Amino acid sequence: MRVVCSKDNLMEGINITQKAVSSKTTLPILEGILLEASDKFKLTGNDLEIGIECIVESDIQRTGSIVLNSRMFGDIVRRLPESEVLIEVKDNNLVIIECENSHFELKGINASGFPVIPEINKNNTFTISQKLLKDMIKQTLFAVSTDENRPILNGSLIECKDNTLSFVSIDGYRMALRSAASDNENQDFSVVVPGKTLNEIGKILQPVDDEITIYNSENQITFDMGNCRVVSRLIEGEYLNYRNLIPKDFETKIKVRTKELLSSVERASLITMDEKRYSVKFSIDDEKIIISLNTDMGAVREEIRIDMTGSKMNISFNPRYFIDALKVIDDEEIEVKFTSNVGPCILAPVDGDSYTYMILPVRTRDN
Amino acid sequence: MRVVCSKDNLMEGINITQKAVSSKTTLPILEGILLEASDKFKLTGNDLEIGIECIVESDIQRTGSIVLNSRMFGDIVRRLPESEVLIEVKDNNLVIIECENSHFELKGINASGFPVIPEINKNNTFTISQKLLKDMIKQTLFAVSTDENRPILNGSLIECKDNTLSFVSIDGYRMALRSAASDNENQDFSVVVPGKTLNEIGKILQPVDDEITIYNSENQITFDMGNCRVVSRLIEGEYLNYRNLIPKDFETKIKVRTKELLSSVERASLITMDEKRYSVKFSIDDEKIIISLNTDMGAVREEIRIDMTGSKMNISFNPRYFIDALKVIDDEEIEVKFTSNVGPCILAPVDGDSYTYMILPVRTRDN
Repeated sequence: MRVVCSKDNLMEGINITQKAVSSKTTLPILEGILLEASDKFKLTGNDLEIGIECIVESDIQRTGSIVLNSRMFGDIVRRLPESEVLIEVKDNNLVIIECENSHFELKGINASGFPVIPEINKNNTFTISQKLLKDMIKQTLFAVSTDENRPILNGSLIECKDNTLSFVSIDGYRMALRSAASDNENQDFSVVVPGKTLNEIGKILQPVDDEITIYNSENQITFDMGNCRVVSRLIEGEYLNYRNLIPKDFETKIKVRTKELLSSVERASLITMDEKRYSVKFSIDDEKIIISLNTDMGAVREEIRIDMTGSKMNISFNPRYFIDALKVIDDEEIEVKFTSNVGPCILAPVDGDSYTYMILPVRTRDN
Repeated sequence: MRVVCSKDNLMEGINITQKAVSSKTTLPILEGILLEASDKFKLTGNDLEIGIECIVESDIQRTGSIVLNSRMFGDIVRRLPESEVLIEVKDNNLVIIECENSHFELKGINASGFPVIPEINKNNTFTISQKLLKDMIKQTLFAVSTDENRPILNGSLIECKDNTLSFVSIDGYRMALRSAASDNENQDFSVVVPGKTLNEIGKILQPVDDEITIYNSENQITFDMGNCRVVSRLIEGEYLNYRNLIPKDFETKIKVRTKELLSSVERASLITMDEKRYSVKFSIDDEKIIISLNTDMGAVREEIRIDMTGSKMNISFNPRYFIDALKVIDDEEIEVKFTSNVGPCILAPVDGDSYTYMILPVRTRDN
């Protein structure tokens, strides 16, 4: 193998594929990046959970392949001058990397043992802008459960139904749902993607209008960005029927400025010295909501003007759940809807239904 | 106590004084910031090693004092809206903090138990710009020893002699010396300041021309920025006579571009998979220096054009020592002077003597 490419293109490819390289593994080859030159020059990382392939624009002078330790390869390329880089594989898997006056000889690993990323038939395709997908992941990922006793909740449901794509995360105490309509005709599908995969995809995606195509088979999903392809296993099993969980009838509805509510709940949650979780109390009255918390360290009382319809209500929440949801909502104003002081509450747009956050209250003595 | 100040001024004061607050202590009062309102409103942090006092511009409506937990106080103020903040101490050390629609009641601690920062006579004063002092600290701090068996080397020597201020750090394998002349008439002095103090001072100093006055007594040093005063204990004992350590005669001298040498040594140091330290070899020849390293992971060879006088030389170094020194040198070009391949080498400016870095070589079989 002998290829010449720019340092910048190579670095970009390494940065992306490294997200699929294991840092903790007993198999040295899995700590590596596969370099393959055939008609294209391709980098691959694969930790058997996620696989990432990137095409790096190159002048391919001789085909071939090799595996290089990901961390060392990345650290070296990162510090090369902004210039052309030559990568050449010699006998005994010795890899030469040359750039201006720098000359490296690294011990590579034979590529034959590297786990290949499977090709998937392009079934159930859905095309979406990178920016929108990045937002949808950010807006739902935080509610993925980390409880290993319910593996199905360790991922997000990605559902395509009636040409609408939805992301759903549920952790038992809260739910995050984000939907986006498509202009194209799409087949319906429903898969559960590990939170870890979505986290890595979210980092790779750029906030640009470029499109990304998603397609899936029975046990794998592919995110295809043209020059870069991410393949992940799916989580097997039946996801919760989330539609049935969302309440329809509400006792109290308020309209509130998102950032104002966020700041107040954040401040209220600070009256504690340790990691112990206290619940914050919402006292909803005619034109205001009072957010309060009392601990052995002190007390806080925050007052926010609101528009309210329905009954007055006292209800308590884990502040973290409100903070997580409010942080990812871009709308200036939202609607918060309460069923009762022991039932779920809903955060939703004032207009439309592009997102739904559901949060269960905490039962306290004084509600 | 009752004061009103702007959120921004208060936050700035907290950020600075927090640098002197212990995070690990069994005395809750030492995790606190002392708030004192008399003719000025003053915040104080004191971990008994460093003490920091900051004046916060305020409207003082009633004098008094209280101690508040530093972390909680800081977290709350950080999240307050950009507005006026009222701080009021009520009965039973209850502290009210109010800002717009936020109302906090925190349990304070009686100020009487807080360790006061001693006033020092303004002897041995030296005045210097904040920017220059910040640079001098950055350019010498990295060579302070962390070996607790030689406590005197856990600090930097600050020496004023013949109206020149010098900072010196030595860790047994290397030395960093930075000097700056003063236009004023100064008394000679020589003190050793803990590295930890200098690290905090370096963070507080801004890269501005505003002046800072340094003065010291027998066992304490004060850095006085006008509205903010940092007092630190000194390390007792006699510092090494560093002037005697610096060689005068050299076998080989080279001129080299600083960033080029830095990049090459950094890249060469990457050919390793673990924390194990390898030495890099410098092979100095007529018009070039070759920097090379061989490990079980591979080999690297970097070539740099230089101007050289004296004999050819092969010499090996711990790359970390070169990287640390080269990173803080602002000059585009430097002179590197070698005594022999087993003696110290010196990094110095091409003109002048504002800094001197001395590094001991590593003895290897093939030098």
